[in-house]
Amino acid sequence: MRIIADIMGGDNAPLETLRGVCQAAGEEYSRDVEFVLVGDEDKIRKTADENLLDIGKFEILHAADTILMTDEPMSVMKEKSESSMAKGLKLLSSGEGDAFVSCGNTGALFTGASLIVRKVRGIQRAAIATVLPFTPPLLLIDSGANVKVNEEYLLQFAAMGTAYMRAIYEVTSPRVGLINNGSEDCKGTELQISAFRRLSESKLINFIGNVEGNMLAFDVCDVAVCDGFTGNIVLKTVEGMGKLFGRELKNIFKANPMTAVASLMVRKQLSDFKKNFDSTEHGGAPILGISKTVIKAHGSSNANAFKNAVKQAINCQRTGVTGIIAEEAVKYAEEKKSMSAAQRN
Amino acid sequence: MRIIADIMGGDNAPLETLRGVCQAAGEEYSRDVEFVLVGDEDKIRKTADENLLDIGKFEILHAADTILMTDEPMSVMKEKSESSMAKGLKLLSSGEGDAFVSCGNTGALFTGASLIVRKVRGIQRAAIATVLPFTPPLLLIDSGANVKVNEEYLLQFAAMGTAYMRAIYEVTSPRVGLINNGSEDCKGTELQISAFRRLSESKLINFIGNVEGNMLAFDVCDVAVCDGFTGNIVLKTVEGMGKLFGRELKNIFKANPMTAVASLMVRKQLSDFKKNFDSTEHGGAPILGISKTVIKAHGSSNANAFKNAVKQAINCQRTGVTGIIAEEAVKYAEEKKSMSAAQRN
Repeated sequence: MRIIADIMGGDNAPLETLRGVCQAAGEEYSRDVEFVLVGDEDKIRKTADENLLDIGKFEILHAADTILMTDEPMSVMKEKSESSMAKGLKLLSSGEGDAFVSCGNTGALFTGASLIVRKVRGIQRAAIATVLPFTPPLLLIDSGANVKVNEEYLLQFAAMGTAYMRAIYEVTSPRVGLINNGSEDCKGTELQISAFRRLSESKLINFIGNVEGNMLAFDVCDVAVCDGFTGNIVLKTVEGMGKLFGRELKNIFKANPMTAVASLMVRKQLSDFKKNFDSTEHGGAPILGISKTVIKAHGSSNANAFKNAVKQAINCQRTGVTGIIAEEAVKYAEEKKSMSAAQRN
Repeated sequence: MRIIADIMGGDNAPLETLRGVCQAAGEEYSRDVEFVLVGDEDKIRKTADENLLDIGKFEILHAADTILMTDEPMSVMKEKSESSMAKGLKLLSSGEGDAFVSCGNTGALFTGASLIVRKVRGIQRAAIATVLPFTPPLLLIDSGANVKVNEEYLLQFAAMGTAYMRAIYEVTSPRVGLINNGSEDCKGTELQISAFRRLSESKLINFIGNVEGNMLAFDVCDVAVCDGFTGNIVLKTVEGMGKLFGRELKNIFKANPMTAVASLMVRKQLSDFKKNFDSTEHGGAPILGISKTVIKAHGSSNANAFKNAVKQAINCQRTGVTGIIAEEAVKYAEEKKSMSAAQRN
C-alpha cells in the first residue's frame, strides 16, 4: 500500500505533518505501507534535519507551490496546479498511490478530489464525512462540502455513510437519521420533507427518521445526514461547545487551592474525558464518493492528528470502503430504476 | 401591568405553571403586577387546593380546551380557538393585558401571536429570540419560527435583536453576526450571501460579519442572526451538548470514593457552572415583532423556568421593547426607501 501525504497543507506544516507521518510509519499498522511525501523538497529535508526526523525511507515528490487556506477551491485546478495538493492528487489519480492525506484547504481538496481523482461511478456528489466524538461515534455527512443538495444527494450520502460505518466501525446495520428541526415527517424545508420520503422508501438505508440537534450526542443514530451548510453549523457548534466546556472545566478547578487538590483527585477521569473529546484522536474526515481514499485532516492538525489521519487512510484502504461505496452506488442505481419502472406501471 | 399566563401549556401543566406564577407574584418585581390565569378553571382551583397554592388574588379566565404539543400550528385559529392559548392571546389582543406567557406548542403560539395579536407595523415576519447561556449572553434570532426567510427578514431580525439586547441587557451597540459556514463574504447559500451584503449596507445595524458555529460561545457578537431552520439546529445542538457535558461531569465524579470526595471540594463551582447553563434560569424566548409582549417558555418548564419567563415578560413590558422595535421598524422602512431612491438616481 502506498500512502501519499501532503506535507505542506495546514497551519502547522511542514513540521507537524512530517512528524505525524514519521510517527505513523513507526506503528505496527504501517508495516507494509510505503509513504510518498509531497511538498517543497528542500524545506522537507531541512525541517527533517533540524528536527532529527528520519525520512530516509520515504519517497519525496517535489512540489514548488502550496495552496493557502485563503485560496479559491478552483485554484487546485488552475494557478496552483503545481502545489503539493494538486501534485499529490494527480499521483493518486495516476494509480501510483492508494490514498491521499492532507490538512490543506478543504474546498480545494474537495474540488481536486472530485475533478482530478474523480467520483465513484453513479455517485452524484462526493461528501465530507466527519466522525463526531460521541459514544458510540456518530458520522456526520455532509459535514461541509455541498452547501446546496437535493434529496437524491442526501440518499447517496446516507448510503455512503452506511457503507463507511459498516466497514470502519463494524456497525452491522447503521441507523441513519436526517438532521431536522423536528421529529415529524412534515418538518424542515422542502429539501428535508422530500428527503424524508426518499429515505423512507429506500431499502438500502436503515432510516430511523428525523433527528434534532439535542439528540445527536445520545446514540439515536450512527449516521446523521444533512446538507453541507447544516453539517458545517453542527460540526462547528459541537466543536465550539467542546472548547467552551473544556475552559469551564479548567475554571472550576483553578478557583482556589482546594479545587486544585480536587483536580488531582479526578486527574485520570479528566484526562479520559479530554481524550474522548480531543479531535486529534479521531483522525481526519474521509471525502466519501471519490474513487480512491482521500482524507481531510483538520487545518490545525498537530503531529498526533496527522498521524491518526494517516492511520485512518490505511484503515479505509484495508477495509476497501471505496469499493464498497462503488457497489452501493450500483445497488442505488438499480433501486432507482426499479422504482421509476414501478411508478410508470 | 397585567400579565396573562397560559396555565395549561407545556409538559408540566397545570401544577408547575401555577407554582411558577405564584412564585413570580411573590417577588418584588411583581409589586404592581396583576395576573390573569387562563385555563380550565376547575382544574386550576383543584390543583391549587391540593398543593396549597394561594391563587385568591389572581383573576381566572376559563378555557375549556388545551392545545397539545402534537396539534398543528393553525389549530390555534381553528378547532382549538377555545383553548387557553387562543383565549389568552385574544385577551392580550383586546387590550386587557400587557403580556402573554406560555410553555405550549411553539408553532401554535407563533401563529396565534402573529395572527391574533398581530405584528408590529412594518415588520414582515416575527421571530423567536432565544438567549444562549454564554458569557456574555448571546441572542439567537430566529431560533426556530421561520424555516424560510429572505435577506430582508434577516435584516429585520437583526434590528429586532439589536433593540432587545439594548433594552434588556443594556448593550449600547450590540454586535450582530450572521451565522454562516465560513467567515468570508462569499460563504453560504444565496441567502447568506445577499444577507451579508444587506446587513453591511444598513446603518441601523452594527454588523461584524459572518460567525461560525465554533465562535458563538466566545463573545464575538451579541446577536446571532439566521433562518429558523439553522437557528433550531444551533439551539438544539447547544442544548444537547450542555446535557452531554452535564452527564460527563457526573461520570467524572462518581467514578470512585476519591472522585466523590473531590466533587464535594468543587461543589460551589459545579453548582455555579450548572446554574449558568441551566435553561430554567434564563426565562423564555420572546417572540419579537409582535405588537405586544409574548414569551414562549420551554415546553418542559418547571416552576422556576415559568417564573423566570413571567419575570422576563414583566421586564420586556417595563423596558418597552415592543415600542422600541416599532420605532426601529419605522427607521428601517425609511432607510430602505432612501436606499431605493439612491439606486434610482
